[in-house]
Amino acid sequence: MTLQDILDPLLDASWKGFPHHSPALRRSAVGSQGWNVLRGDLPLPLAVIRRDALGGNLQWMQGFAGSHGVGLAPHGKTTMSPQLFQRQLDAGAWGLTFATVTQLRAGVTAGAKRCLIANQVFQAVDLQGIADLKRANTGLSVAFLVDSLAQAELIEAWYAVNAHVEPFDVLLEIGVDGGRTGCRSHEQALAVAKRLRSGKATRLVGIECYEGLGATGESDADKAYANALMQRVRDIAQACDERQLFETDEILLTAGGSAIFDLVAEHLKMNLSRPVQGLLRSGCYVTHDQGTYHRFMNTVAARMGCGHGLNAAMQVWAAVQSCPEPGLAILAVGKRDISYDLELPVPLGLCKAGEATMTPAPADWKIAGLNDQHAYLRGSGPEHQSLRVGDLVALGISHPCTTFDKWRWMPVVDEQNNVCDAIVTCF
Amino acid sequence: MTLQDILDPLLDASWKGFPHHSPALRRSAVGSQGWNVLRGDLPLPLAVIRRDALGGNLQWMQGFAGSHGVGLAPHGKTTMSPQLFQRQLDAGAWGLTFATVTQLRAGVTAGAKRCLIANQVFQAVDLQGIADLKRANTGLSVAFLVDSLAQAELIEAWYAVNAHVEPFDVLLEIGVDGGRTGCRSHEQALAVAKRLRSGKATRLVGIECYEGLGATGESDADKAYANALMQRVRDIAQACDERQLFETDEILLTAGGSAIFDLVAEHLKMNLSRPVQGLLRSGCYVTHDQGTYHRFMNTVAARMGCGHGLNAAMQVWAAVQSCPEPGLAILAVGKRDISYDLELPVPLGLCKAGEATMTPAPADWKIAGLNDQHAYLRGSGPEHQSLRVGDLVALGISHPCTTFDKWRWMPVVDEQNNVCDAIVTCF
Repeated sequence: MTLQDILDPLLDASWKGFPHHSPALRRSAVGSQGWNVLRGDLPLPLAVIRRDALGGNLQWMQGFAGSHGVGLAPHGKTTMSPQLFQRQLDAGAWGLTFATVTQLRAGVTAGAKRCLIANQVFQAVDLQGIADLKRANTGLSVAFLVDSLAQAELIEAWYAVNAHVEPFDVLLEIGVDGGRTGCRSHEQALAVAKRLRSGKATRLVGIECYEGLGATGESDADKAYANALMQRVRDIAQACDERQLFETDEILLTAGGSAIFDLVAEHLKMNLSRPVQGLLRSGCYVTHDQGTYHRFMNTVAARMGCGHGLNAAMQVWAAVQSCPEPGLAILAVGKRDISYDLELPVPLGLCKAGEATMTPAPADWKIAGLNDQHAYLRGSGPEHQSLRVGDLVALGISHPCTTFDKWRWMPVVDEQNNVCDAIVTCF
Repeated sequence: MTLQDILDPLLDASWKGFPHHSPALRRSAVGSQGWNVLRGDLPLPLAVIRRDALGGNLQWMQGFAGSHGVGLAPHGKTTMSPQLFQRQLDAGAWGLTFATVTQLRAGVTAGAKRCLIANQVFQAVDLQGIADLKRANTGLSVAFLVDSLAQAELIEAWYAVNAHVEPFDVLLEIGVDGGRTGCRSHEQALAVAKRLRSGKATRLVGIECYEGLGATGESDADKAYANALMQRVRDIAQACDERQLFETDEILLTAGGSAIFDLVAEHLKMNLSRPVQGLLRSGCYVTHDQGTYHRFMNTVAARMGCGHGLNAAMQVWAAVQSCPEPGLAILAVGKRDISYDLELPVPLGLCKAGEATMTPAPADWKIAGLNDQHAYLRGSGPEHQSLRVGDLVALGISHPCTTFDKWRWMPVVDEQNNVCDAIVTCF
């Protein structure tokens, strides 16, 4: 398995969406085949990434972080795409964030030198995996989360019989009552931090929280929530600094999903005894969406008092396979192909069979249900009545993560839906 | 890309669940590594298939079809695993069913000679794909669904400029009002059948329906519904036979998902002017589940007046990563790893950290929510209170299809959770 095999693998017709008749191609060769999605060169359904929106999103989010004086460590779990990891790093990302050691490995392969695992690590196989990756990649830094004495003790126990490896860089996680992981109280957090300082296996390098699960989209509530959480994070950071519990030259302060990252960014700058590196970890911004994150970003834009620069970059094209009843068209696309966890897909556009241009989907169209391989497109107007088998419909998504993980590759398309590049994923 | 690469690919640490430290291994070599899931040899989360339950399921379902005088063409979309396709064919399956041409290709690669596509095909790229597969695989038969004149005309139009290929074998699909695809009326179905007979591009080889979406789990309602639907299917078959619209020596009659297949099996036998091959297309039986299909099968068993031989063969193991509040443990497993479309996962068992045996999960345990990479395990009893970071929890699933598609490979395990084999998937 060479680096080329991973970063520029051979795609063939066993990969969903790849043309049945095409010989196997390196990913990097896909963009020069002259394929067009609306001309029928590729089998449907097909998830595509719009080149221009993607480029704009990468730039805007990096600019947002820069202008707020914090770094960006985008969450790689969203896309798990080495090509997108490289684009994020090239755009100026401080590093990348992952959820597991297997994901981390993909990021390191793509060239990441500074990585966070925004998750607890404690299993022997995973601790060994991090140690091995660091040994094999000089200069690689990896920090993961700790939120309990129990977890700290598991790491110490492993280290006691593996003391030849470097200690693990760890971030203390702060959580909220009724939330997910993370220390619930100042005292508990401080007790864990002290244990991390006293132990041989770990070096405390910063404080982490994840505010995204508490976001509502109502600015007053979200501001109060984010301020309270971030104040706790800062209090802990201050307390750890005063007690000299941090063991590196630089202290990391990190938060930030894709919903209310603007409300936490300012809180990630602090004056402590050592330089503080604030880090946002947004992931969904890469392709953005037409649902949940679209609405959250409208609120972000309202708070910022100006527009935002994110545009939905992902679309899933599907064909009308049957018009069995008035008001109902069945599309050949389903749960295997598109997000359905936060909301059902939204009709974006129509390309009549044999034509190669998209017109916007009428407002009365709605995806009313999804099966594994089918979608129910309902509508009441004349455009729906004139739908025919073979017409193509573009669907927008809500929650990029759960569409990315349904595709091993995706074409990147220009505004005319010409395939000009391709990314692969490694879920 | 050789046949070995597809059927026996090289797995490595970039595949989720594969040990970080292991060299790349052919799939066929995984079973001899001496790995054990509960001993921590593989990173978690990890979906596993229980060897004995799998073997029993393959045998029982094939036996059910045989004892009812029908063939089995299992739906391959459930698993998309060449190894499981081969097991199904070896167990005596008539052939395999797929939803797309890309899926069909995987089945043909695995050795299927008789295939159904239980979906409408009409796009040029897909028609060409089927023609190419048939040309490259002598003796391969492929039949797909047609349910409208519009679709028939698209196929004719393609064929008019590609008349050098064999006509396509097609099944006329019968549907129900308020349902998905399929002709709604006898007259409409007959009109489509006549067009298929008169056209040059198609040969009508049988009649198809899918009853699964109308299943409720209430026997009286399900019987009435299945009887009415199957009577319509039989009436159409009779009418097509009388009008000599079938163009093959054998007529296919096919129905059957995994919910109420017992209610349609008897209807798939018919006396027509040519031999009739009845075909069930169940897919989920391969691993069965602990949710939706478990309940449906209880009802099937009650109707049969005896037990059934399906046992849940899929489990997803995850580690407790945090116990942040009384009554709440966070598991490192999420939407990326396990089905959540029909129901959330169900706790099945517990393996305390450092031990290697599973005890049943207490009745008060419940998965209360899933994020992309996390699960919320709630409980009120003493066993939940004694949960610690590092403990392992086995989760059962509802709907095998949407767990299979989250894994590129899965170990097959014996009763002690030793890894004795592995399957790969090609979603």
